[in-house]
Amino acid sequence: MKGKIIQTAIDLFDEKGFKETSIEDITDNIGATKGTFYYYFKSKQELLKDIHLSFILDLLQKQEEIIRDPSKNNYQKLYDIIYLIISGIKTKGKSARIIFREMRHIEEVHLEQIKGKRRDFRLNVQALLEDGIAKGHFKNNVRADILAFSILDMVNRTYYWYNPDGEISEEELVNYYLEIILNGIKNRGPEHN
Amino acid sequence: MKGKIIQTAIDLFDEKGFKETSIEDITDNIGATKGTFYYYFKSKQELLKDIHLSFILDLLQKQEEIIRDPSKNNYQKLYDIIYLIISGIKTKGKSARIIFREMRHIEEVHLEQIKGKRRDFRLNVQALLEDGIAKGHFKNNVRADILAFSILDMVNRTYYWYNPDGEISEEELVNYYLEIILNGIKNRGPEHN
Repeated sequence: MKGKIIQTAIDLFDEKGFKETSIEDITDNIGATKGTFYYYFKSKQELLKDIHLSFILDLLQKQEEIIRDPSKNNYQKLYDIIYLIISGIKTKGKSARIIFREMRHIEEVHLEQIKGKRRDFRLNVQALLEDGIAKGHFKNNVRADILAFSILDMVNRTYYWYNPDGEISEEELVNYYLEIILNGIKNRGPEHN
Repeated sequence: MKGKIIQTAIDLFDEKGFKETSIEDITDNIGATKGTFYYYFKSKQELLKDIHLSFILDLLQKQEEIIRDPSKNNYQKLYDIIYLIISGIKTKGKSARIIFREMRHIEEVHLEQIKGKRRDFRLNVQALLEDGIAKGHFKNNVRADILAFSILDMVNRTYYWYNPDGEISEEELVNYYLEIILNGIKNRGPEHN
């Protein structure tokens, strides 16, 4: 029932907006009572916070699995983390859009918790880049802190314009990003291409 | 007087939020009457639209001057466009933050106009990249459409975390972005560094 409430809420928040969706709208839609809703959530705000937090915790857990995997080098880990974000557009695009759009309805104390998890995700990318610099995979003039922001800004914003069912596949897009990040776009002449 | 109203409104929207700022708040602050406000603007929404539109029109005009400049090659033009955006954080950071945050208070018809101008800005970057590919400045496997999104997403989001009075100067940041975009971060060994 909890999962059903969350899924219905995501659909309604996406269609009508968070403010315009009442708890009755959610419970009516699944034939439940308001009592059932309050059994699982203290308020609509708390439900929204749970959607946010579970989205970022899921990403963070998968990211940590990638980072811990001893069979992958830093290029592959970077690929996998970018792929993790891009592949979420198809399956979790709705949650993500709600997350970005309805951020302002989250209470300050919960927002701090969510922001903390987002920061963890970014700092993991930064640590990966630092490790790659130390091991000679990445150039030693790379600023891992700025680059972690840059990569995540670039990849996260894909949620606003990329259509995973369009002409470019998720794999092509991720390969494309990795190619730019690793090799850049400057033409160095035929001998380097 | 029009400029004074706009500047006061930007300060108040930034401090209190758009919704929480009344027209009286703005006029009281500069010792004017509501009649004066309505002489220049039909409504608070129209004032917000004017702030948005003048921000993007100013950027667009400066971008077009950069692109038309025959003394610059495509690398320099790309540098100048990124610098144009980054240097705006100091002088126009407040307007920009309001633009991003209060977008939802703009009426649909005006939003379309603003989005059109933002699209023009992006398409100018795309055209610059296409020209650079045609002239052999950039690799011919570059997808100018995706890259225009990527560069602008990366650079625009700087408004959320970069402090122009901090340890990294605007020039350093722009050089850094250009270095990544042009040359990437992969270590190709000492002979290429």
